Amino acid sequence: MIPKDHPRYKSLIRRERIADAALKGIVAMEGVGAHGRGEAFDYLIGEKTTDSALLAEKTAAALFLKAKNPVMSVNGNTAALAAEEIAELQRASGAAVEVNLFHRTEERVRMITELLEDAGADVLKGEFERLLPLSHDRALCLRDGIYSCDVILVPLEDGDRCEALVNMGKTVIAIDLNPLSRTAKTSSLPIIDELSRALANMTEFCKTLSDDEAEQLVAGYNNRYFLESAVKDIVENLSNALD
Amino acid sequence: MIPKDHPRYKSLIRRERIADAALKGIVAMEGVGAHGRGEAFDYLIGEKTTDSALLAEKTAAALFLKAKNPVMSVNGNTAALAAEEIAELQRASGAAVEVNLFHRTEERVRMITELLEDAGADVLKGEFERLLPLSHDRALCLRDGIYSCDVILVPLEDGDRCEALVNMGKTVIAIDLNPLSRTAKTSSLPIIDELSRALANMTEFCKTLSDDEAEQLVAGYNNRYFLESAVKDIVENLSNALD
Repeated sequence: MIPKDHPRYKSLIRRERIADAALKGIVAMEGVGAHGRGEAFDYLIGEKTTDSALLAEKTAAALFLKAKNPVMSVNGNTAALAAEEIAELQRASGAAVEVNLFHRTEERVRMITELLEDAGADVLKGEFERLLPLSHDRALCLRDGIYSCDVILVPLEDGDRCEALVNMGKTVIAIDLNPLSRTAKTSSLPIIDELSRALANMTEFCKTLSDDEAEQLVAGYNNRYFLESAVKDIVENLSNALD
Repeated sequence: MIPKDHPRYKSLIRRERIADAALKGIVAMEGVGAHGRGEAFDYLIGEKTTDSALLAEKTAAALFLKAKNPVMSVNGNTAALAAEEIAELQRASGAAVEVNLFHRTEERVRMITELLEDAGADVLKGEFERLLPLSHDRALCLRDGIYSCDVILVPLEDGDRCEALVNMGKTVIAIDLNPLSRTAKTSSLPIIDELSRALANMTEFCKTLSDDEAEQLVAGYNNRYFLESAVKDIVENLSNALD
């Protein structure tokens, strides 16, 4: 019932998707609040991909193309918002898809796997083992998936897990709208952009990047640059917002 | 299970309260996301009452003390986060309390009324009539409450309703952490602060303001000043955040 010509149509549709997925149990209640925090930052960033975010997405695509075992870690919010985009990025990059939840239950893993498969993704399965240096079920992952990957994409990830993955020596690409979050700060490459925009851009770059370009991008990126650019963009938007 | 010495303890407790209230049906799913957006702005504002917000709270107390029929409009998020603070502000100011919901059901009105009464608030009752210039059930309010008040406090209010109340000639005090929201912009007096901090400060000022001070404050306040100050504070915090 949201009119298509509403200036914030896409944002409102995403909000509705998260609420629906929460009612079904796909998204945890914590995920609904987290989505709200993301919405606030997307609003501040202008609800569009900034120049620096586009460069981060290009670099992320290069990292995926150059990786030996790239993996995407998918949680409830990611599946609810962008199952199709995950499947498309998988087709363009060949990356594996593993369901990995912070608020983990077998039922939620099952529902999210189904949602991803319905969208055309190929989802890794097997025996989940406690292989990450984290407490409780947060340590669970697949030996042939997240545990042995060299490059991992973590959309909407928790700071602890992001840090643990970095400490395991992996190249961690985070998608997070808050440039001040621990996830964005500790990741190897932070993409400060909305999830579905970021995934679609990565897919496009995976299809078009030359091998030379990819090599150059992988050699010379810098976490700090992307954080600072995002903060600068937000400050600029805020400074003009009341004019 | 959140440790008391966690630097963001209060914020995490509030998050938990909203999630619990959502599971009980007191808070609508939309309210969980809205709380998330508020959290992001509270983080940017420094999770404390700024100087300009404190002046807004002092002015709001003065407006309450000088009003003929002050009313507080209470929704699910407000009741879940600050039922005690609402009851205390009512005791200090004599303002009426009316439950008024955006996502209205009789069941939610009943639960929220109960929650407020358990906290010691005196809640207006009677026949809700379509008296506000809004569509559907959003028009509902009490003739002897919101409809006939001169000053109204709307914590965490929707932009449409805020505007409708202003157009009815009422002095509308909004509590909203987003200084760019339509609610904050259209209100008579925007308090850019977290709800329970704002209510506690208003209560304190209701107890201590002299009649002269109250008169001066009511005569000379300016919506725009509070919005601009909040934006300035956020910009300053952001500019230092990556140092």
